[in-house]
Amino acid sequence: MRTPEQFVEYTVWMTGALRESSPLIQCITNEVVSNFTANVLLSLGASPAMAAVPGEAGPFASIASALLINLGTPAAEQREAMLEAARVAHSAESPWVLDPVAVGVLSIRTALAAELCDLSPSVVRGNASEILVAAGEGSGGRGVDSTDGVEAALPAARALAARLGGVVALSGPVDAIVDGERVVRIANGHPYLTQITGGGCALGAVIAACLSIDDDHLAATVAASTLYTVAAEVAAERAFGPGSFGVAFVDALAGLSTEQVRQRARLS
Amino acid sequence: MRTPEQFVEYTVWMTGALRESSPLIQCITNEVVSNFTANVLLSLGASPAMAAVPGEAGPFASIASALLINLGTPAAEQREAMLEAARVAHSAESPWVLDPVAVGVLSIRTALAAELCDLSPSVVRGNASEILVAAGEGSGGRGVDSTDGVEAALPAARALAARLGGVVALSGPVDAIVDGERVVRIANGHPYLTQITGGGCALGAVIAACLSIDDDHLAATVAASTLYTVAAEVAAERAFGPGSFGVAFVDALAGLSTEQVRQRARLS
Amino acid sequence: MRTPEQFVEYTVWMTGALRESSPLIQCITNEVVSNFTANVLLSLGASPAMAAVPGEAGPFASIASALLINLGTPAAEQREAMLEAARVAHSAESPWVLDPVAVGVLSIRTALAAELCDLSPSVVRGNASEILVAAGEGSGGRGVDSTDGVEAALPAARALAARLGGVVALSGPVDAIVDGERVVRIANGHPYLTQITGGGCALGAVIAACLSIDDDHLAATVAASTLYTVAAEVAAERAFGPGSFGVAFVDALAGLSTEQVRQRARLS
Repeated sequence: MRTPEQFVEYTVWMTGALRESSPLIQCITNEVVSNFTANVLLSLGASPAMAAVPGEAGPFASIASALLINLGTPAAEQREAMLEAARVAHSAESPWVLDPVAVGVLSIRTALAAELCDLSPSVVRGNASEILVAAGEGSGGRGVDSTDGVEAALPAARALAARLGGVVALSGPVDAIVDGERVVRIANGHPYLTQITGGGCALGAVIAACLSIDDDHLAATVAASTLYTVAAEVAAERAFGPGSFGVAFVDALAGLSTEQVRQRARLS
Repeated sequence: MRTPEQFVEYTVWMTGALRESSPLIQCITNEVVSNFTANVLLSLGASPAMAAVPGEAGPFASIASALLINLGTPAAEQREAMLEAARVAHSAESPWVLDPVAVGVLSIRTALAAELCDLSPSVVRGNASEILVAAGEGSGGRGVDSTDGVEAALPAARALAARLGGVVALSGPVDAIVDGERVVRIANGHPYLTQITGGGCALGAVIAACLSIDDDHLAATVAASTLYTVAAEVAAERAFGPGSFGVAFVDALAGLSTEQVRQRARLS
Repeated sequence: MRTPEQFVEYTVWMTGALRESSPLIQCITNEVVSNFTANVLLSLGASPAMAAVPGEAGPFASIASALLINLGTPAAEQREAMLEAARVAHSAESPWVLDPVAVGVLSIRTALAAELCDLSPSVVRGNASEILVAAGEGSGGRGVDSTDGVEAALPAARALAARLGGVVALSGPVDAIVDGERVVRIANGHPYLTQITGGGCALGAVIAACLSIDDDHLAATVAASTLYTVAAEVAAERAFGPGSFGVAFVDALAGLSTEQVRQRARLS
């Protein structure tokens, strides 16, 4: 596995690769964060496409570079589109990310998350409570908020990753990215990311974008989380509150420099 | 009833109570303003959850601290979720807010608003034209805009409040909060609030958050309207137009101080 | 036809007319950009109404000043609302704009766009790839992005305009507005408009607003594109990245001055 220093250089490389290759990222996500998610992807040079209608979602998954499925507001028609797209991504071995928002708390999405996990998501991203539920443990958090800690959820996250043959990204004050064997921790970020809606959801889309660049899904997920949380720190220094933070965050992603990544990244 | 000075101190207390208790606010609202509404709630320390799918909306209403139902974009599936959640809130005597956007102008939501009023909303919030229609008078405004004045709608608002056994919040240049007997006027705010989409809709969510803190629904609604419109004045001083106002408003809500409330609140 | 100088003065006049008459603009648009679209319309003095539910969309089209139909996220219920509203607008000879987002790439919207074209949209707005598909040529772009150039798409755009008896607005680095005979080019704008989601979609709404002011649809579309892209230039000078650009753009539209239009407009 890469050393922390090598992950930092890999993140620098990934930031440039996103801007150069402009991957096409299909997002089937919740309506609350669709605008923010699209702007975050655009700021990194990726091209978002919210193709989420049954009959279009599947065919589009076969041409998209990667797919994000986020369960935040799972209307019936969108649930059908999610399954349609995930089946195509699974058959095509195309990378896709599952963000199981508020599973455990709410029943329809909990059943849907289980069904989607059978289609081998490349990465499952969530907070500790969501990951515990996805792993078959825990009973969910409080609404969309976690009531469990990242470190306490690590064994469940590793077990889930091993079962899926994929990667699990645990978001919290310190993020943990795991596969069945390895753990990488990222100690960057800012509380403002939890004070704007979509702070976690948009990270799922950035992970999808990075997966489309490199088949090493653990490394790509580490790069996504690192560049995202480093940009949050840059933005927080320019913000007067959560409103201006959201704006500055998109600016910071667009302007993220090699120096900022090298100076701020805190990986272990 | 509290004196104006006592309402100001109550508003200060409420602002702190929201930050400390972080109530879980279920929002079934229109897609145009869902992002802004969530960010407004987060800025005040509340935890928004847009649980709006039939099968999830009802069960979630039984665990949420309060519920907002906003009729702005009432798709069929969302209408079903609204009724499901309102029935649970009504049975559980849990506080809930109805925002009857554009009733009178559009037929489906007008019928739905009447059905929802039978489920005893704690507060109905709207502009004068919407409140007149909800009260069984008037024929609606112009699209989402009011064509009637707040003072002219006061008798209808009081009659509606008396019928519902609840509170009616009339939004306009001067807001009026009424129950069957009392009227409190709040002369704060800024025209910018009408120049961004969701300026009224997000207030409905803030009222729901305040209702979850205190059973005195008239006072809680006064506090919500006061802190909201005071923050708008603070934000307007930092804004260069409606775009930067929207950003500064979220910052101002997050940073709202005791001094700002005491110095600016104009209640009568 | 007007000279370039006359189009500039017409744009100045149109900016004032929007603010004075505050037209009611019905938008049936995609959920990703509905908030931004509403705020753009509000910033220009127009009154947006996202009346997009079957049973309400048709009746509302008969009272709205103009209608926008944008195919970005065409859920089944919204498709029904689109047809309902377009039929009313067509019968009433009320102006309406079609924005055929990503046609050619995705099948459901491609068929829907063809059906809607039979209802005589006053203006079709899109990038070169979308216009080529709408004209029966080309196979679509890459997701929502164009892979074709504006100048190469001009003959198809003119043929489409002639067939519809309307106007086609081709968006690109230089915008081209055509009817069956005439072409007006607008060399304003900024790359930031392509780096925020909704940069093109909201222009469709502004065109609808301008159509409601004047029956000369070519001129009204030129004015919409000119004031929009001039404001983008003003905003870009105040922006630190795409996030702050989006905010400054709404401010710039609200504050757009006669001098800014006269000094910056580059029409030919």
